[in-house]
Amino acid sequence: MTRTAFVARISAAGPDDVSGLEAALDGGLPADGVVALLGKTEGNGCVNDFTRAFAVRALSDAMARRRPDAATAVSYVMSGGTEGGLAPHFLLLGRRDVTGHEVPADDRAPEGAALAVGGARTAALPPEHLGRLAQVRLVADAVRAAIADAGIDDTADVHFVQIKCPLLTADRIAAAEARGAATATRDTLKSMGLSRAASALGVAVALGELALSDIADEAIGRDTALWSGRASTSAGVELVDHEIVVLGMSRAWTGPLAVEHAVMGDQIDVEPVRGALRRLGFTADGQLGPEERGALVALLAKAEAGTTGRLRGHRHTMLDDSDISSTRHARAFVAGALAGLVGHAEIFVSGGAEHQGPDGGGPVAIIADRTRLPSRRSER
Amino acid sequence: MTRTAFVARISAAGPDDVSGLEAALDGGLPADGVVALLGKTEGNGCVNDFTRAFAVRALSDAMARRRPDAATAVSYVMSGGTEGGLAPHFLLLGRRDVTGHEVPADDRAPEGAALAVGGARTAALPPEHLGRLAQVRLVADAVRAAIADAGIDDTADVHFVQIKCPLLTADRIAAAEARGAATATRDTLKSMGLSRAASALGVAVALGELALSDIADEAIGRDTALWSGRASTSAGVELVDHEIVVLGMSRAWTGPLAVEHAVMGDQIDVEPVRGALRRLGFTADGQLGPEERGALVALLAKAEAGTTGRLRGHRHTMLDDSDISSTRHARAFVAGALAGLVGHAEIFVSGGAEHQGPDGGGPVAIIADRTRLPSRRSER
Amino acid sequence: MTRTAFVARISAAGPDDVSGLEAALDGGLPADGVVALLGKTEGNGCVNDFTRAFAVRALSDAMARRRPDAATAVSYVMSGGTEGGLAPHFLLLGRRDVTGHEVPADDRAPEGAALAVGGARTAALPPEHLGRLAQVRLVADAVRAAIADAGIDDTADVHFVQIKCPLLTADRIAAAEARGAATATRDTLKSMGLSRAASALGVAVALGELALSDIADEAIGRDTALWSGRASTSAGVELVDHEIVVLGMSRAWTGPLAVEHAVMGDQIDVEPVRGALRRLGFTADGQLGPEERGALVALLAKAEAGTTGRLRGHRHTMLDDSDISSTRHARAFVAGALAGLVGHAEIFVSGGAEHQGPDGGGPVAIIADRTRLPSRRSER
Amino acid sequence: MTRTAFVARISAAGPDDVSGLEAALDGGLPADGVVALLGKTEGNGCVNDFTRAFAVRALSDAMARRRPDAATAVSYVMSGGTEGGLAPHFLLLGRRDVTGHEVPADDRAPEGAALAVGGARTAALPPEHLGRLAQVRLVADAVRAAIADAGIDDTADVHFVQIKCPLLTADRIAAAEARGAATATRDTLKSMGLSRAASALGVAVALGELALSDIADEAIGRDTALWSGRASTSAGVELVDHEIVVLGMSRAWTGPLAVEHAVMGDQIDVEPVRGALRRLGFTADGQLGPEERGALVALLAKAEAGTTGRLRGHRHTMLDDSDISSTRHARAFVAGALAGLVGHAEIFVSGGAEHQGPDGGGPVAIIADRTRLPSRRSER
Repeated sequence: MTRTAFVARISAAGPDDVSGLEAALDGGLPADGVVALLGKTEGNGCVNDFTRAFAVRALSDAMARRRPDAATAVSYVMSGGTEGGLAPHFLLLGRRDVTGHEVPADDRAPEGAALAVGGARTAALPPEHLGRLAQVRLVADAVRAAIADAGIDDTADVHFVQIKCPLLTADRIAAAEARGAATATRDTLKSMGLSRAASALGVAVALGELALSDIADEAIGRDTALWSGRASTSAGVELVDHEIVVLGMSRAWTGPLAVEHAVMGDQIDVEPVRGALRRLGFTADGQLGPEERGALVALLAKAEAGTTGRLRGHRHTMLDDSDISSTRHARAFVAGALAGLVGHAEIFVSGGAEHQGPDGGGPVAIIADRTRLPSRRSER
Repeated sequence: MTRTAFVARISAAGPDDVSGLEAALDGGLPADGVVALLGKTEGNGCVNDFTRAFAVRALSDAMARRRPDAATAVSYVMSGGTEGGLAPHFLLLGRRDVTGHEVPADDRAPEGAALAVGGARTAALPPEHLGRLAQVRLVADAVRAAIADAGIDDTADVHFVQIKCPLLTADRIAAAEARGAATATRDTLKSMGLSRAASALGVAVALGELALSDIADEAIGRDTALWSGRASTSAGVELVDHEIVVLGMSRAWTGPLAVEHAVMGDQIDVEPVRGALRRLGFTADGQLGPEERGALVALLAKAEAGTTGRLRGHRHTMLDDSDISSTRHARAFVAGALAGLVGHAEIFVSGGAEHQGPDGGGPVAIIADRTRLPSRRSER
Repeated sequence: MTRTAFVARISAAGPDDVSGLEAALDGGLPADGVVALLGKTEGNGCVNDFTRAFAVRALSDAMARRRPDAATAVSYVMSGGTEGGLAPHFLLLGRRDVTGHEVPADDRAPEGAALAVGGARTAALPPEHLGRLAQVRLVADAVRAAIADAGIDDTADVHFVQIKCPLLTADRIAAAEARGAATATRDTLKSMGLSRAASALGVAVALGELALSDIADEAIGRDTALWSGRASTSAGVELVDHEIVVLGMSRAWTGPLAVEHAVMGDQIDVEPVRGALRRLGFTADGQLGPEERGALVALLAKAEAGTTGRLRGHRHTMLDDSDISSTRHARAFVAGALAGLVGHAEIFVSGGAEHQGPDGGGPVAIIADRTRLPSRRSER
Repeated sequence: MTRTAFVARISAAGPDDVSGLEAALDGGLPADGVVALLGKTEGNGCVNDFTRAFAVRALSDAMARRRPDAATAVSYVMSGGTEGGLAPHFLLLGRRDVTGHEVPADDRAPEGAALAVGGARTAALPPEHLGRLAQVRLVADAVRAAIADAGIDDTADVHFVQIKCPLLTADRIAAAEARGAATATRDTLKSMGLSRAASALGVAVALGELALSDIADEAIGRDTALWSGRASTSAGVELVDHEIVVLGMSRAWTGPLAVEHAVMGDQIDVEPVRGALRRLGFTADGQLGPEERGALVALLAKAEAGTTGRLRGHRHTMLDDSDISSTRHARAFVAGALAGLVGHAEIFVSGGAEHQGPDGGGPVAIIADRTRLPSRRSER
């Protein structure tokens, strides 16, 4: 008996459109194996974006009809903002056990390794630890646990770590202060950035990209030289711990899926992504053609405007625009660059990239179905 | 004696930043030869975008200090909207006579033809002709005159036609109605789209892309199957006629510059643009590298969201967004796709693409300095 | 046995905050008597406002826990947009039977009449009738039925008619066309305006403000001279008929509540509203003081920018703003004018006022608890 | 010989519409006497609002045609943002000498005092003083000088102090740091708020509203309990010193104009403004009627959302809106409240109210022409 991962990309007609999820589960994907539901929803991706909560409500209601523990056992990570041509969609990530003879010959891991999906949760984070080294440490430990859960031996085989982390609320700050503990900030909006920042650094520590000793409390959320090339973090009010999903490659898993990653050095740095596509077996000369496009299961990327106000020497206006948030500009623009490469825009580009890739750049993960690559199919 | 065209791309620190223009003219570009100043300014590109008028005022004041006829002899075409990473900049287009021995050997037209710049103006457009076949005809005739002015023999050598066209105002509508003539619309905003539409069709007729008999009054601004692959039109309140600038290739001209064009079929259709780059001598495998980037003098493109609400089968949300105009989404997104190809974002992406390219797509023109291409330099 | 109306104004901490509703029902308001839940939610109030659907989902889920027919028997009318200081809130409208001796002496209708709440639904509207006289007629008949349901004898005693009406979708248009019937528009967004317009005219006809013969098909949605001073209409995709709620005064009802209305002639025309307050027993010299404010149960108003671009002779910029919809400007501005009068901003100001009040103005309804007026209390 | 002040309110058809200014000067207002031009322009009032600079360019060009020192001798203070029904307009403030017999009997100061206008400039502010007590002191001294210039004996007779103050730029910060001096912030946007804050506190000190000893460096821009009820401050990049305009009442001046002020405690606190109107001779029962409206020459107010997220106990959403800046919400909403009182919206409501009125509230100044009051006219 071995494990296999499944990933379904599901188009959404609205934040509460669960028809695609229902169809995927009706079609045979096991509700019990679902680890995470990621979603690109069509709000502004900023403070007053209610499409995220609306989608979580609809998705968890639908899951609960099939699985009583759906509210806690599945990680729901919604990223608001479908600027430019970005297509609203959900990504269903899961796993199941298979016996050897169940795996069709075609679906056996071609290079001996296949996509592995692992998960973990931390203990509740004391509010006064948020945005500080204690959070980095807590997350790093849990990322290691999720890697172990995925059966991945070498951190080099980890390609993407998605974390949902807590934030501060007035109540949580008060609770800390009642105990005589001071939180890193009293601004609840800033606490979102700090939590994302510390969580990303936790990933970097777990993956060996940074040593814990490289990180000082005051660098968290500030020092853009510190970053992970494989972290994607998102803060949510509905949890007080951390939900961690690890994607990597493991010989202990089977199936057609594989994952790779790249780091964009700035918003239009698509060549590293082309390199990742090629490592997965895509030709990727120019834009992916229709025949290769079908093998691209999912693309996840982080986008941000960068703090210098410049892109390759030219001024941009994203940081000075008081009508449109720079995060919205960045998603639209990076989505264009990536869609120009992969040939469609049902891709997962999200903002809020503290310590996730270099200043102005960001990590990109790609999940491919290798059996659908023309090169592979012609081999048979 | 022969003619040579000049094109300067000038970064702008603000809508009224004429320091780059001053430097270019101080540096030797002749004010008397300037045909047009195109500008990407950092407003919203929609109705209440005052950065365009602000830039025109600053630019024409600066030109007037060097040339008394600057207000009327130069065409100022400002396109608002620098969404995503788009860099605010001006494009100075002009021409001058050179005697044969003045042309450095390096700058002689490499393939026997060089960039040619021609101009023309129409007579004043009666308001009741706006958005109707009469406007199409008037523009088509003037485009032919501008082609002749450029010394271009074959319409196949025309790669880009920029038109600034009039719009209706309450006064102009009243004047027409006082004569018993009805205008195509009484909505001044709609008149901008109709004027751009009829002007683009005029280009298509002059270039032989469409026959006049293909076009009915009621198709203007409506039938997306009718389009030019080389038109770029913009409506302005400050004129009642049309200013026309033609860019093409001609053996009657000399110099290092060349122009090509492509038509994007949708917002991420970058491969035709790659083809145009290659026709100009760029390698263009993947993104343009730093050594080739210097040879790209200017890129001009039209962007729009498309009317179907779909991009290659996936839903996009641009047309339903009441917070951000679809034109702003489209510019940011297409800018990402094109910057991902050419390696920087100081490119001229503008909106409002009625009959300019197919639905959701648009024409792209590229001006290159062939002497700066690595391939060319190594030949010497 | 007689009837009494109840109205609860419930502050909302978010679109899905049903804690106040739960508390109101726990506190004794009968779920079975609820006729309508109106909500001001904090989205943009335009096309991509998902806070309305999110609120409806949360509210109907909560109601369904107490009443199996909650999805169909209760009218949920959400109005997006809490611009300026507008406070997100819900209004719970309902009725119950009381036996005479149950009514506390204080709560008996002071002037012999009390707030009456009536409801009705129409038959399904054939899509080709939308925005046409057939819809006006259908609505007018149902408004008459709702007035009868409320036990109101004289249309002069009707002060507010809230209608939720259908809109066209691609499917509905196709269904009509399959039968050979043409819809008034094929633009689904425009169909919302047309449906609101025809519904408002239906109210005007039922109330005798207009005769059916005054209205031509082509005037619907266009002729701003035709309007009702008591209609408030809202289009929703989730129904194909019309839900109608009538508020008025009737001697057949008892209780402390009363309703009045006024028509603002433009966005700052607050004096008629002051008049309505005075008719209800408020002093209303200057702004309502804290002691009178408690007697104001609810204020409902319609706001719009007006089509002339002028307010009392001065230019406004609402119609030319491509960053903020004029409906958002109008709600913020009218909310300021009305809050300046009544002393707080938990008021129901909504947009989309076709034929609801004169061009630029709108109807205002006020529900008061007369027993809480200082003048009344001192009488006892 | 004595002095008289003049104030003209000039409607603007656009940021660069100087036709009204030209007409006012052609009509007899002396260009040499102009002290300040204030403008409400129709940009977003935030960082990327170019309508302010556009207006200044147009106004100063127009003034320069009549007065060579126009660029430096006149203070141009543009406030972006005409949300809601706010009408774009300019306020021309000036003064001239008159001999006693030139003053028409009607225009003699009715109560023995008339509007007095004074001005002053400070020395250049060292960048490291910005946002600190040194700036407070510098401004306080200059306000005293402007009061003296206006011939006002008692600070109680000062009703409005408009200050245009400098901000930090990267160059200015670098210059300070090159001298070994640290600036209060290195964030240029924050420096605007700090400069406005210190300037407002300078007014408070000069007017005796606060003692210098009440203010600590760290309270500047933070402690909302410290405020002036008569300050209005605005930061601009084009100056390094401060331009100060004082409006008050003085027996040394003559003419029909008078000024009063009020402090709104929150965004809808209009009753103090009604009080100020009454002190000026308006009846002001309800909204100003047409006959009194003509006597209202100008109304200037500061608006802000307040930091608590509550307005009289009800939640507002202005601070959480990522689509529309809270300053835009606040201007629209407060404009509604004030227009509801005075009967039109050609009023000067501006944002950025650090230490200008209490948290969420703001100062309001009213300039009236007493000879146009019905009460006054009937006396004659």
